[in-house]
Amino acid sequence: MILVGELINTSRKAINAAVETKDSEYIAEIARKQDEAGADYIDINCGSLVNNEPEVMEWLVNIVQSVTDKPLCIDSPNPLALEAGLALVRNGQPMINSITAEKERFELILPQVLKYKTKVVALCMDDSGMPETSEDRLRVARKLIPDLLAAGMSGGDIYLDPLVKPIGTNGSAGMEVLESVQKIHEEFPDIHFICGLSNISFGLPNRKILNQAFMIQTMVAGMDGYILDPLDKPMMGFYYASQAILGIDDYCVNYIRAHRSGLYEK
Amino acid sequence: MILVGELINTSRKAINAAVETKDSEYIAEIARKQDEAGADYIDINCGSLVNNEPEVMEWLVNIVQSVTDKPLCIDSPNPLALEAGLALVRNGQPMINSITAEKERFELILPQVLKYKTKVVALCMDDSGMPETSEDRLRVARKLIPDLLAAGMSGGDIYLDPLVKPIGTNGSAGMEVLESVQKIHEEFPDIHFICGLSNISFGLPNRKILNQAFMIQTMVAGMDGYILDPLDKPMMGFYYASQAILGIDDYCVNYIRAHRSGLYEK
Repeated sequence: MILVGELINTSRKAINAAVETKDSEYIAEIARKQDEAGADYIDINCGSLVNNEPEVMEWLVNIVQSVTDKPLCIDSPNPLALEAGLALVRNGQPMINSITAEKERFELILPQVLKYKTKVVALCMDDSGMPETSEDRLRVARKLIPDLLAAGMSGGDIYLDPLVKPIGTNGSAGMEVLESVQKIHEEFPDIHFICGLSNISFGLPNRKILNQAFMIQTMVAGMDGYILDPLDKPMMGFYYASQAILGIDDYCVNYIRAHRSGLYEK
Repeated sequence: MILVGELINTSRKAINAAVETKDSEYIAEIARKQDEAGADYIDINCGSLVNNEPEVMEWLVNIVQSVTDKPLCIDSPNPLALEAGLALVRNGQPMINSITAEKERFELILPQVLKYKTKVVALCMDDSGMPETSEDRLRVARKLIPDLLAAGMSGGDIYLDPLVKPIGTNGSAGMEVLESVQKIHEEFPDIHFICGLSNISFGLPNRKILNQAFMIQTMVAGMDGYILDPLDKPMMGFYYASQAILGIDDYCVNYIRAHRSGLYEK
């Protein structure tokens, strides 16, 4: 199970402001807090800054690495920004977020994956667009995963993101994801799965409740990676509770540690 | 999906006190509140009163039926108490909680099930004791379900309870339940599943968090009935949220209604 901390993203107001004012202290604090809260990877995304993304990526990577030894998830569709970030990476195996089965995107991103021997988030979409059904996802996975393996990746470095869509517009959107993870897992038992959760609840009230429930549901289906806010205590509480019940937390060690750290206090 | 309200049980101090003081108002209030909170069945259990269980059962059934039209779940291993309660039932199809595959219990309870054409909670245990593994449960189910069908029951009236045991003493206890529900569901697609949740968390801190997570997990596996406290707002919030995401709440109607009723307010 891996947890990618999503907070360092310039599409978030506070992060964007910190970049604009060169407030390295704030960026460092957010990186440190995510590390302490249990993030396995620290995501860095400055894709909203189209004019100087590679330069900002360098700046962010250096700051984050000055306060944490956790590996980084370099998050961009722009090969120049990926290269700028990956060239500086010094802790563990980095992750790229993300590649897809779209022909152009696949060819643009793959060289960076191979050059830096990264893990990769592989979005389950191709040139026909976003998937709707589990069959759509299975069809894309059957092309994307073998293509990545043929390029020399090992299955354990692939994190397939089934792409979560809102149940508010399609009532079966949740089930389609659960089914596709189960089916793809059966067919490709070596690969991992990862997703963000918040799309599931788009347009509905009490979004956090729906996001928490969907994390717990997807973990049963075989999801073993999440891109989320590790400072969200209720979500993290369920993250550890779910693993304890699923028997993937020996002797509930992580759950008890989370409890002792005060995670479940109101 | 059915929800059985568990609160009217003389093993609970307040209910026992109300029985002792003949406080019918308190019993009526708890019945009414469970009805309003969304219980589909109202469980009545006075098994702790071994000296006059049938008499108290009559008293409780009459009070509960004076304030709610919801059907009752008559909860006892004592055929005399079952008879006392079932003879008075006047709203819908009652449920008996519970029969087992233990030879004596099966023969004692079955006549009441058939006489009153009830639904029945069928505990997944036999004379060899409580089940540990999913294989244990499958073995019991393969005897118990066909025996109930052969006696004339329809599959849709059987609610198999896989029996939940604590993850604190056996780390795989949660997975064994999830697996057994999936396997038994494949083999007997017509029957339903039901369980109580609180055993999963016995001996661990933050029990409510674990119980909530386990409800969400079991629903993914195919559980479609819960015996719980319908006045527990966070639990009920997840009960509706889970169904919304699983696509078994068309247009999220019940979820939105729960939201509008204030269920998700702090």
